[in-house]
Amino acid sequence: MKVPEKILSGLKKEKSIFIAAHINPDGDALGAALALAEALESKGKETFVYSRDPVPAIYSFLPGYERISSDPRSMLKHRPVMVLLDCNSPERAAVEKYGFKSSIVIDHHETEKDFGDIKWIDPGAAATGLMVFYLLKALGVGITKEIATNLYTAISTDTGTFRYSNTSAEVLKVSAELVEAGAPPNLIAEQIYETWDRKRFRLLVIALNTLEIRKGIAITHITKEMFRRTGTKPADTENFSNLPRMIESVKISAVFRETGRDMWKVSLRSKGASNVARIAEFFDGGGHKNAAGFSIKGDLKSARSALLKVAGNLNMNKR
Amino acid sequence: MKVPEKILSGLKKEKSIFIAAHINPDGDALGAALALAEALESKGKETFVYSRDPVPAIYSFLPGYERISSDPRSMLKHRPVMVLLDCNSPERAAVEKYGFKSSIVIDHHETEKDFGDIKWIDPGAAATGLMVFYLLKALGVGITKEIATNLYTAISTDTGTFRYSNTSAEVLKVSAELVEAGAPPNLIAEQIYETWDRKRFRLLVIALNTLEIRKGIAITHITKEMFRRTGTKPADTENFSNLPRMIESVKISAVFRETGRDMWKVSLRSKGASNVARIAEFFDGGGHKNAAGFSIKGDLKSARSALLKVAGNLNMNKR
Repeated sequence: MKVPEKILSGLKKEKSIFIAAHINPDGDALGAALALAEALESKGKETFVYSRDPVPAIYSFLPGYERISSDPRSMLKHRPVMVLLDCNSPERAAVEKYGFKSSIVIDHHETEKDFGDIKWIDPGAAATGLMVFYLLKALGVGITKEIATNLYTAISTDTGTFRYSNTSAEVLKVSAELVEAGAPPNLIAEQIYETWDRKRFRLLVIALNTLEIRKGIAITHITKEMFRRTGTKPADTENFSNLPRMIESVKISAVFRETGRDMWKVSLRSKGASNVARIAEFFDGGGHKNAAGFSIKGDLKSARSALLKVAGNLNMNKR
Repeated sequence: MKVPEKILSGLKKEKSIFIAAHINPDGDALGAALALAEALESKGKETFVYSRDPVPAIYSFLPGYERISSDPRSMLKHRPVMVLLDCNSPERAAVEKYGFKSSIVIDHHETEKDFGDIKWIDPGAAATGLMVFYLLKALGVGITKEIATNLYTAISTDTGTFRYSNTSAEVLKVSAELVEAGAPPNLIAEQIYETWDRKRFRLLVIALNTLEIRKGIAITHITKEMFRRTGTKPADTENFSNLPRMIESVKISAVFRETGRDMWKVSLRSKGASNVARIAEFFDGGGHKNAAGFSIKGDLKSARSALLKVAGNLNMNKR
């Protein structure tokens, strides 16, 4: 992977760098952000890692986790450059109301927005963490154990720990190098997959009880009432859409999460060749081939029907 | 990893080679066996791949699957040398009653038996498939797409696809090379993890609805009525006990399966340090540290109480 020269020069000349993860941050956004922050600080720069939303507890093991902040005022005084990570519009990171000197976008999502003074968008990259790995190499930053742990977590998150179709020889080679640099593969996997709290697991089981499969599409839903009943939050639903993929006949898994009255956020995961980004784009959402999402208005029944219709029209439920 | 010279010379001088996988063969035994067979045939040797037990359907995608046989008579006439893979006693492969010219053992298990004319046992190897990879390299065999797929499956099986503590930089590097040679990571993961049938998944959800956690022990149960309702069989519950391990507070997961009137079979899985074999032994059952089982009489309530009491007395629910 070739790092654009303008990204390197764009970062090198800056002193204050504001790194923004997208809303509802995942392991790729957070791991990439923390790794980049540590690397830039080792080069004498001042950095700030911003996430509007609270970081899911499962990522609290990430080195540097405690520095992630939702209050950027102290940093904004320095008029920093903003690096948008793992997304490519300021709205996706909830930073549109802040003023920055300029902006740099580093992302691997397919749906590209017209934003960014300097852009590096590579939909072929398995994870933003992988792009940051090459960026750090090009900047001549040594991969510490902390950086390695953050980047390995980023890559693990977006490749399903090497189970998704974006797992390539390159992904495995870089991951091997990160393990050599000190990333602990099994501890990271345990943190990501085996540290669910009880109420989150209870919510999962409740959601799985709503499972219906129509034409290869598994649909589950989570209502606000379910969150209340279990004492859980929207962030607790991360990866819920993965589980129904265990079923052989399921090509796409969709989780409908109630966000307001007759408003739903839909998280899509695909197995094999189905490109769920195309479905999400139809609904003005985005994502990548195997993981995408969108918002939709309407009651659950009509929202579900709309998804099934679009998937059918796009022939998405075939392999 | 260094391949012992005696293994190389031992194989090179033979013409007929009988390769035996262990009983209840898994992806490591099968993938290693099929890869070795193809490699040796490319060197002009005649090979036979033996498994006493039927190969689980999830492994039917392995290249060469159709040649695995439980009837060795045709081959035994040639008085072959026997290569024991992923185990180290003839009983584990159910070949003790057959006559061989000599025997070669290639295994990574810790409990070593006094068997084998030539032995290569490396408990530090993550998988027998990894040892076979180095063996093929040392023999100068090119890694075909078929060999790569078999070896990648072998390594995936024994490392939980890079999630267990035996996942090392070396494991990832070799896997990267296998992907370069044509192994498809996501298709292999899909075959191993995402080929559940719908009714089996439905039974899982019904079982998870019964989940209760007491002192770090997750208990679920499956009644005969649940089997009837979902059209499933006891064999469909394999690995059900793994799922509640996702919960951080869970140290042990126990699945109670009704086998008759007031009769239960209990399957135990542990996370970390808990040794469930000790619990199973108390009830005249058996197994290993992280996976064991036993049978118990009584109604569900008293059977559960008995388990909790024994686990508490053995201090098993602590880590």
